[in-house]
Amino acid sequence: MENYIYKLEMKVRDYECDIQGVVNNANYQHYLEYARHEFLEYIGGSFSQMHNQGFDLMVSKITLEYKRPLRGGDRFVVCINTCRKGAKLIFLQDIYNLADGALMLKGEIDVICLKDGRLTRGEVFDEMFKDFMAKNNA
Amino acid sequence: MENYIYKLEMKVRDYECDIQGVVNNANYQHYLEYARHEFLEYIGGSFSQMHNQGFDLMVSKITLEYKRPLRGGDRFVVCINTCRKGAKLIFLQDIYNLADGALMLKGEIDVICLKDGRLTRGEVFDEMFKDFMAKNNA
Amino acid sequence: MENYIYKLEMKVRDYECDIQGVVNNANYQHYLEYARHEFLEYIGGSFSQMHNQGFDLMVSKITLEYKRPLRGGDRFVVCINTCRKGAKLIFLQDIYNLADGALMLKGEIDVICLKDGRLTRGEVFDEMFKDFMAKNNA
Amino acid sequence: MENYIYKLEMKVRDYECDIQGVVNNANYQHYLEYARHEFLEYIGGSFSQMHNQGFDLMVSKITLEYKRPLRGGDRFVVCINTCRKGAKLIFLQDIYNLADGALMLKGEIDVICLKDGRLTRGEVFDEMFKDFMAKNNA
Repeated sequence: MENYIYKLEMKVRDYECDIQGVVNNANYQHYLEYARHEFLEYIGGSFSQMHNQGFDLMVSKITLEYKRPLRGGDRFVVCINTCRKGAKLIFLQDIYNLADGALMLKGEIDVICLKDGRLTRGEVFDEMFKDFMAKNNA
Repeated sequence: MENYIYKLEMKVRDYECDIQGVVNNANYQHYLEYARHEFLEYIGGSFSQMHNQGFDLMVSKITLEYKRPLRGGDRFVVCINTCRKGAKLIFLQDIYNLADGALMLKGEIDVICLKDGRLTRGEVFDEMFKDFMAKNNA
Repeated sequence: MENYIYKLEMKVRDYECDIQGVVNNANYQHYLEYARHEFLEYIGGSFSQMHNQGFDLMVSKITLEYKRPLRGGDRFVVCINTCRKGAKLIFLQDIYNLADGALMLKGEIDVICLKDGRLTRGEVFDEMFKDFMAKNNA
Repeated sequence: MENYIYKLEMKVRDYECDIQGVVNNANYQHYLEYARHEFLEYIGGSFSQMHNQGFDLMVSKITLEYKRPLRGGDRFVVCINTCRKGAKLIFLQDIYNLADGALMLKGEIDVICLKDGRLTRGEVFDEMFKDFMAKNNA
């Protein structure tokens, strides 16, 4: 397992699984979103601060590689790295099965920042994540 | 099939089913909620009007009897009757399988109306649904 | 807070909230289902054993009283008691907000047991939950 | 709007929206999955046939570009094209708002085919979709 700046352990709930007995593909996005929100809470409330200053974060693109399926009751960990790419903040999010350390999913989530409805160049990300930016992940 | 004041046909989507191949119990609430919102739209936008006048509708209680399970791809119809019970508006919502007419679920959903955060006696329901109230359904 | 035989702490995830900023009504059923499955795992794998012996548990009825809404990020606890009522096993499940101990939801979930597709009188519940049955909860 | 081999009209349900009043990012995957399953049903049951012959389809990668958000009650259309890329079947799935024809989401979903648990070279896709393959979409 690589180095990550944030990790969140979770457990599959049965209702997240579909008829094949594996987690439905869409639910991985829920896991990733929840981990990002927990990460933002962890680095300290800057999210609501930003909103009050007129900044809005939006996911502009998502790429998920499904390596192996999670099953009901599986324990897993969502790992996060971040980097900047032009105006975007990139979340690199990988999911590992805790039972055997196997990589289950690789995700790349591009986030943009709007100020009063217009695309910014993302300067605010530097401020927000300055201690957390992994330097060489792109 | 009884008489109902509103019917909405739907189809089970595979992602709504769980590992047993049947619709997850919670998803029936989604069906019922969607049918109520479609019904409200059908009787004409009074919902947003109400909100603008300070009225807020909230579900206070829900009772669901699961008769038979729906499966992936099943076509079904959500049927609605309404009646008043004191301060509450009651939605009687039954789901039938369209293939054979079998009753799959019986639901009773109690809705209350708040005005500026305080419980009302529900006078607004009479206004809103006056043409739709089934007289003897309670 | 009453006495309960099982408690599970959880946290609201933002994607479980709807446009009003509160947990969507259907998602409480997910919370309750997840807590029941964790409880069954806790009392020791009898669930899969039962299935292998031809027994199948099904929810036949659910009654939820919505007292107060949970919001994004709220921490809460799902509390469980069980009792027998004829052929049914009743789960009494209450949800409390951990911040102030307020009761958010009262739930009663009726579960029946089928053996090879036919309704049983529920003898198997006594076996399964014998140490956990609250004597006077009905 | 481009040419597509299949189109499915849908409508946003309120419970699919989150606190911002727009469809939660994960729910677009549900729309896309549902449209693919309807498409497979449309081209004629070959899906279950395949399964009975030991073939299993799995999503291996998904790329979604979020252009504009859908809101509660919006009517939209999910459009599908397919093409082959090596062992993969690619679904190109775009979502348009029906009110103004605006492109809301561009999706690319890579599907692989396993036979008895081992990756195939995807010969079966040619058979299955032979009348539907868009020749020059890659």
